[in-house]
Amino acid sequence: MQKQELSYEDSKFTLDTYWLDPISDFDEPVDQPLAIICPGGAFKFQSDREAQPIAMKFNAAGMHALVLHYQLIEDGKAVYPLALQEMATTLNWLKTQSESHHIDLNKVVLVGFSAGGHVVASFNSIMLNPDERKKIFTDDLEVEPSANILGYSVIDMTLGWPKDEEWSMKISPDIYYWQAQEHLTKHGKPTFIWQTVTDDTVPVMNSIIYAQKMDLLEIPYEMHLFGSGGHGLSLSTYVTKHPDGGDYNVYDAKWWELCVNWMKLQEILPKF
Amino acid sequence: MQKQELSYEDSKFTLDTYWLDPISDFDEPVDQPLAIICPGGAFKFQSDREAQPIAMKFNAAGMHALVLHYQLIEDGKAVYPLALQEMATTLNWLKTQSESHHIDLNKVVLVGFSAGGHVVASFNSIMLNPDERKKIFTDDLEVEPSANILGYSVIDMTLGWPKDEEWSMKISPDIYYWQAQEHLTKHGKPTFIWQTVTDDTVPVMNSIIYAQKMDLLEIPYEMHLFGSGGHGLSLSTYVTKHPDGGDYNVYDAKWWELCVNWMKLQEILPKF
Amino acid sequence: MQKQELSYEDSKFTLDTYWLDPISDFDEPVDQPLAIICPGGAFKFQSDREAQPIAMKFNAAGMHALVLHYQLIEDGKAVYPLALQEMATTLNWLKTQSESHHIDLNKVVLVGFSAGGHVVASFNSIMLNPDERKKIFTDDLEVEPSANILGYSVIDMTLGWPKDEEWSMKISPDIYYWQAQEHLTKHGKPTFIWQTVTDDTVPVMNSIIYAQKMDLLEIPYEMHLFGSGGHGLSLSTYVTKHPDGGDYNVYDAKWWELCVNWMKLQEILPKF
Amino acid sequence: MQKQELSYEDSKFTLDTYWLDPISDFDEPVDQPLAIICPGGAFKFQSDREAQPIAMKFNAAGMHALVLHYQLIEDGKAVYPLALQEMATTLNWLKTQSESHHIDLNKVVLVGFSAGGHVVASFNSIMLNPDERKKIFTDDLEVEPSANILGYSVIDMTLGWPKDEEWSMKISPDIYYWQAQEHLTKHGKPTFIWQTVTDDTVPVMNSIIYAQKMDLLEIPYEMHLFGSGGHGLSLSTYVTKHPDGGDYNVYDAKWWELCVNWMKLQEILPKF
Repeated sequence: MQKQELSYEDSKFTLDTYWLDPISDFDEPVDQPLAIICPGGAFKFQSDREAQPIAMKFNAAGMHALVLHYQLIEDGKAVYPLALQEMATTLNWLKTQSESHHIDLNKVVLVGFSAGGHVVASFNSIMLNPDERKKIFTDDLEVEPSANILGYSVIDMTLGWPKDEEWSMKISPDIYYWQAQEHLTKHGKPTFIWQTVTDDTVPVMNSIIYAQKMDLLEIPYEMHLFGSGGHGLSLSTYVTKHPDGGDYNVYDAKWWELCVNWMKLQEILPKF
Repeated sequence: MQKQELSYEDSKFTLDTYWLDPISDFDEPVDQPLAIICPGGAFKFQSDREAQPIAMKFNAAGMHALVLHYQLIEDGKAVYPLALQEMATTLNWLKTQSESHHIDLNKVVLVGFSAGGHVVASFNSIMLNPDERKKIFTDDLEVEPSANILGYSVIDMTLGWPKDEEWSMKISPDIYYWQAQEHLTKHGKPTFIWQTVTDDTVPVMNSIIYAQKMDLLEIPYEMHLFGSGGHGLSLSTYVTKHPDGGDYNVYDAKWWELCVNWMKLQEILPKF
Repeated sequence: MQKQELSYEDSKFTLDTYWLDPISDFDEPVDQPLAIICPGGAFKFQSDREAQPIAMKFNAAGMHALVLHYQLIEDGKAVYPLALQEMATTLNWLKTQSESHHIDLNKVVLVGFSAGGHVVASFNSIMLNPDERKKIFTDDLEVEPSANILGYSVIDMTLGWPKDEEWSMKISPDIYYWQAQEHLTKHGKPTFIWQTVTDDTVPVMNSIIYAQKMDLLEIPYEMHLFGSGGHGLSLSTYVTKHPDGGDYNVYDAKWWELCVNWMKLQEILPKF
Repeated sequence: MQKQELSYEDSKFTLDTYWLDPISDFDEPVDQPLAIICPGGAFKFQSDREAQPIAMKFNAAGMHALVLHYQLIEDGKAVYPLALQEMATTLNWLKTQSESHHIDLNKVVLVGFSAGGHVVASFNSIMLNPDERKKIFTDDLEVEPSANILGYSVIDMTLGWPKDEEWSMKISPDIYYWQAQEHLTKHGKPTFIWQTVTDDTVPVMNSIIYAQKMDLLEIPYEMHLFGSGGHGLSLSTYVTKHPDGGDYNVYDAKWWELCVNWMKLQEILPKF
């Protein structure tokens, strides 16, 4: 892993980059898809459990991976709209990297967990709509994602998380950013959604309302709501399990296999 | 397979029975769970594609299986409430069979596809609520199901299927039976729901509204909405594929494995 | 399941038949492959754990299944050559059933476990070689199997099972029948072999020597030798687990999935 | 990936290191298992197809990974015994890294493909036997592997690969090193072996004779011989497939899942 520093206006932010090397046995390098991962952490931190272990799964599936350290509540700054501007900056930066790292820019996937999912869903809703985007990002968006993956994602901050409005105000004093589903348009991209119905932190209704909005707008989606397990499962395997036990659910680990199948369906990965 | 004829009042109906034999190597026979399967077919017929092939999967998983030939639109009769009375009659009949066939009556699962799913969902909503049940079934319900499995199920007949109200009126002149979700109470049982979001016959919103109602009532559920494939997929493998091609989707076949996991979670099947 | 009685000369024997019904939704019935299952049981009995539960797996995979109650050591009779004559008789009988039950006679698989595997391997070695067959079976063999599946199979009765030669003499006073690999010729059919290397009853060398002989003769085969688990695992899942615990190994249950893949490779089952 | 240069006596060699970072959310870092990967390439090169893509699978499974660029036929040097000395040097070097990189030194796995498998099998046979080791490696071996994984591995250079003895002489003028199985002792470690029986480059008998020797010595092993596919399959998925088609077999890709199960069995990975 190598750190990459980028900036939007005067705000610096960091990417963890996990590049695949080209396979020199091949006559010429193959461009590979890429995943940009937004870990969760309640906008207070970014959990390592949803960073490198997730990047490793994408790498193993033949995809480059980046972990975006999007804006948190810190230094007196709000998350929004800065997190969205950082994501857009990251996407545009990919264009400068595609030749040296052999990136297939038509196969970029945004991946968000919990709070990080709110960033991804908001990007999908707001930033892919040119009319809304240009209010907060004056450059062109030169690289668009082709799909999103949302794990136990916050969608609407009025549905139970955060628990108090004061916290929501710190995330964004502008309530425009509270409800990602409200801004979704036909510009939104196909989205894979998974969560547990027994999530005791972010109510599953977050996932359901986003799916319903996608359904209404006829945007392709897939949604898996598992019957057990709590919040923050990450891979739901021993790899991301807390050493002291903690939450872990063998059935929910199926999400990754389902997600790979779906990426094949979306032609991000080859079918065979 | 052996046919079993039962009757509710003066209406006769038929079960296809797929009993597991006890394993004589064991010191004593083990009581096995049982699935009652309601195939789809628009209330005009019951599709063989959702009958024996499904029964075989339950048998292979160590469960007895019955296919219930519930009341169709025929002989000038409506489906409801007769289909519900037949299901109740079947459940009570199980009690008479449990000793000879070694049935674990605490592990009975109702399984419905498409129109057959409407029967199962309605039974879950209406017949497990003693106040409603006694209006149409005066006997006690001596055996209750412990879980339901709904595949691309019709839930609410006003959501797109049937296409014309005339058809709905034939299914049930009493509109009380049109919307299964409306009658769901806390008496409802844990339910596994799957469908494709691209179902072109029964809108996926049928599944979503039933899940939402379960969520509201805090009834355990699990829901898998796949991103591709049409209506009537059954197992979504070569086993139930039309010889002339037709609808078939390799990704959606995962529903069965997810369903087995969920039955383990519900302790209908052993975890190991 | 229905019992079917057949006879070879004056010896009667029984089949348990598990026929798939045709799917009436299809324009015309589809001919299905068929598996003939020989359970193990040390030639003293046939274990139910390797009978119906195995038949159910084949049925669920879209194949007819028969359990052959081949000759045991009883009534003062030896197993061989009668067991082989019974298998040949069963295969020829299939021809009389293929039209009524829609059997694809080009896709018949012989499946043997433990002692039952010795019957299958011996059939493959001896009875598919016309020169040897005609010595003990004067009719033509009108239906040939297209593949074999051997689970923890006895191959060579001098390799550790049976423990005493007296037992082998009861199985077959003619030592010609003791070593199935010795008689294998190029007439043998593709074979799937699985066992555990830790089998404490039938040494794994039985599987290995049969594979080596197939390799030498350039007969296609596949072999999976698992690193743990004992003898007689059957499906190695809860379905065939002794209620009082007994041998059971979650990793070894993979054999079935590998076996289905191999049947696809052999074009016994459709690839998709 | 970072390059690490090591040396044995005056020979320099290189490792590609793929370290997992500790998860900072945990109270304290967890020591992780480690895989040392020896790609194949006929001792003329090391194939990238068996390097980083394999390392990524181990990383994704929660294991550190190194790719060992063992001695090739070049610069007038032979492969043996230098490749073995390099492997020993690498293992001892791990001890200096275990604290900083959180390596569980009791869970080190050697992984070899094709020619690289010959290095691993030879290490297992020769270098884990103290009597033989001290003839070519005078230091103590401070870190021992706990298991081996061999993919379509060369074991015995007289069994069909290399095709001419001249080549074998370049690999090792000392014929002592030609037949890895000959030197195997009870010091050898549990080994997972996989190959295709249709391998047209390295005859499958290589795998079988090593398994037989392990069986004789009562060293735990597991062996999967698939019925189709050629040599050099690597992961046997799209990830390592030649862009121009080439060899690729969907069924053989199961080896990785079986291998992970086996690592669980060996307690290199947690069972859940």
